[in-house]
Amino acid sequence: MEVDTGNLPGRNTAIRATHLVSHDSQNSTALRDAGDSLTERYLAEVRDLIHDELLAIVGGSRYRGVLYDLMLEYPLRDAKGLRPALCIAVCRGLGGRLADALPTAAVLELYHNAFLVHDDVEDGSRLRRGKPTLHEAHGVPVAINVGDGMMALSLQPLLDNTRRVGLGRALQVLELVSTMCRESVEGQALELDWIRAGRFDLGDRDYLEMVRKKTAWYTFVAPMLAGAALAGAARYPRSALRRFATVLGIAFQIQDDLLNLDGDEHAYGKEIAGDLEEGKRTLMVLHLMRVLEPEERRRAEAVLRTPRGAHRVEDLRWLQGELRRRGSIDYGRALAQRYAQRARSALRRLEAHLHPSVHREFLESIVEYTVARAR
Amino acid sequence: MEVDTGNLPGRNTAIRATHLVSHDSQNSTALRDAGDSLTERYLAEVRDLIHDELLAIVGGSRYRGVLYDLMLEYPLRDAKGLRPALCIAVCRGLGGRLADALPTAAVLELYHNAFLVHDDVEDGSRLRRGKPTLHEAHGVPVAINVGDGMMALSLQPLLDNTRRVGLGRALQVLELVSTMCRESVEGQALELDWIRAGRFDLGDRDYLEMVRKKTAWYTFVAPMLAGAALAGAARYPRSALRRFATVLGIAFQIQDDLLNLDGDEHAYGKEIAGDLEEGKRTLMVLHLMRVLEPEERRRAEAVLRTPRGAHRVEDLRWLQGELRRRGSIDYGRALAQRYAQRARSALRRLEAHLHPSVHREFLESIVEYTVARAR
Repeated sequence: MEVDTGNLPGRNTAIRATHLVSHDSQNSTALRDAGDSLTERYLAEVRDLIHDELLAIVGGSRYRGVLYDLMLEYPLRDAKGLRPALCIAVCRGLGGRLADALPTAAVLELYHNAFLVHDDVEDGSRLRRGKPTLHEAHGVPVAINVGDGMMALSLQPLLDNTRRVGLGRALQVLELVSTMCRESVEGQALELDWIRAGRFDLGDRDYLEMVRKKTAWYTFVAPMLAGAALAGAARYPRSALRRFATVLGIAFQIQDDLLNLDGDEHAYGKEIAGDLEEGKRTLMVLHLMRVLEPEERRRAEAVLRTPRGAHRVEDLRWLQGELRRRGSIDYGRALAQRYAQRARSALRRLEAHLHPSVHREFLESIVEYTVARAR
Repeated sequence: MEVDTGNLPGRNTAIRATHLVSHDSQNSTALRDAGDSLTERYLAEVRDLIHDELLAIVGGSRYRGVLYDLMLEYPLRDAKGLRPALCIAVCRGLGGRLADALPTAAVLELYHNAFLVHDDVEDGSRLRRGKPTLHEAHGVPVAINVGDGMMALSLQPLLDNTRRVGLGRALQVLELVSTMCRESVEGQALELDWIRAGRFDLGDRDYLEMVRKKTAWYTFVAPMLAGAALAGAARYPRSALRRFATVLGIAFQIQDDLLNLDGDEHAYGKEIAGDLEEGKRTLMVLHLMRVLEPEERRRAEAVLRTPRGAHRVEDLRWLQGELRRRGSIDYGRALAQRYAQRARSALRRLEAHLHPSVHREFLESIVEYTVARAR
């Protein structure tokens, strides 16, 4: 298919050679650049591959201008591309082929970005990856429709999997995507309900249930299980992979919430403390509610119930300060570390089944990356 | 599965006997009530069947309160249920079984309502089927997420089709749904772009292209072709069915636009002239633009470009009046009739392949219904 890449925002036209991701060697170190870490290079290479795949999926439609270019806006901004990288690494690590995993990996990235477009409208966010959110730039109606379009476009490549990897694997992936969508919508519904109903009678268990659905399933569980399905892997400890993905997802979301409270806006690419403005019930906020005196707790609840845009800056600053002073940030950091530790244990049960390769190394490295990242 | 129907809005707990839809007799007249038309009874029976099917799809999840009950809001309001009825009628008319068509028919209704939920947000509509729109009642964030959830829920029953009707037919239906989603999002993108860019340099061809995508594909083409696929029908004139569905869809949308301009709010269930407030480029509006004097045309454009909620009532009244006086309403009526006539011709090419049955009679009656309906 002829694809014109001329007008695409942020498109890196010089495709990097993909040494790591397509390589089967056991000796990966020779291939690495001196500067970047394995994690960063693996992610960057997958991003290039996924960009090409997304261009192929979007194709040369005459509706590019009014629809499809907007679908590529978020995916082509400088994203991590974690989901496709996890899918590919598990597929390759279990002996599968890159070409078999690529379309599905691209679809997972497309779904992720579709949810982001809608999430940004729902949360009233202004920045995404350092640029205006889609609804800020093009209005809410267009943003909702573009998100729907990204979901609509996701189905065909998964149907084409039947020809690529056979019916059995294709249907496994479709079932996973079906579950993934349900889980993330349920997680999002829980969170929206808490905010809308003004609920603060929530414990860590509630938070963890929401995050297992909202983040872990669609960022980690679905991509990794899809990778295993696409590899046609039958004999590997599926429960260990699932556990690895779940606990890693929880660590990832806690870290994300920490960065939102306490990170560097430039590196993070979103408004700092945006979660407080949105009244998000993070682990840290729930901790703070438990340790505040009744009167301060009432003030904190009032701040968190204030609609976005109606806050006094000093109230948000006060809340941010309390989160630090009362040990809530430290509490979150400790829990993120604990879940990262659990991820390492789960990965040890898997390692014997993974080929010694960059793909296995990438999966090992991702645990550290998840809790140490600045964005 | 145990399903509690107690709290469902608008649920008709006394399930009507479904004489027509499940009946194979060639003599349908004996089964009809004296009062209702065949069209109305067929639609009503399908609605009851689809309500049960939707309850089964939604199931007894613990997230009913925060999510799934809201997904049933629109489908259980007093809708026409046209899409499932068309799917079932074609399937049965071509010799297929009711049980094979039901889950897909319910999914088509679910998709339709998901798009309505998002459309209502995009258009800023206040009423849907005589009650507040979902975002009016529960806020925009919840409405966007509920729409996403309805789409997410639609995939599983289509995957379960593989066990029900076999792989070949299941995949055909999935391909149709994939195309349907793309077509409707493209149609919606066209319309949003015209409004956003303030474009009035549009002809009937532009309108018809948009409507073929936005309405015909997802209300008529996909349901009917899915019905044929589920029946396993191989030897019927597929091109005639497709043509029947397309031209009927166009007649349907023109009639919908006419009702919006000129209908009875109580019967119609939406705000009359809401399309003018939203600046929709209907066939009638485009006609008016062609016949108005330059100065009046400028006034009309200014009214249509005014954002929703900022209009003076007299401007909308003036526009409505001009549409009548300048023959634009008559022009729309005549075109709806012409497309209905084309639908009758296409149906004649199909009739020899349809079993003589209520299902065939329903398909014949639907042409009249489409252009004569008051809602």
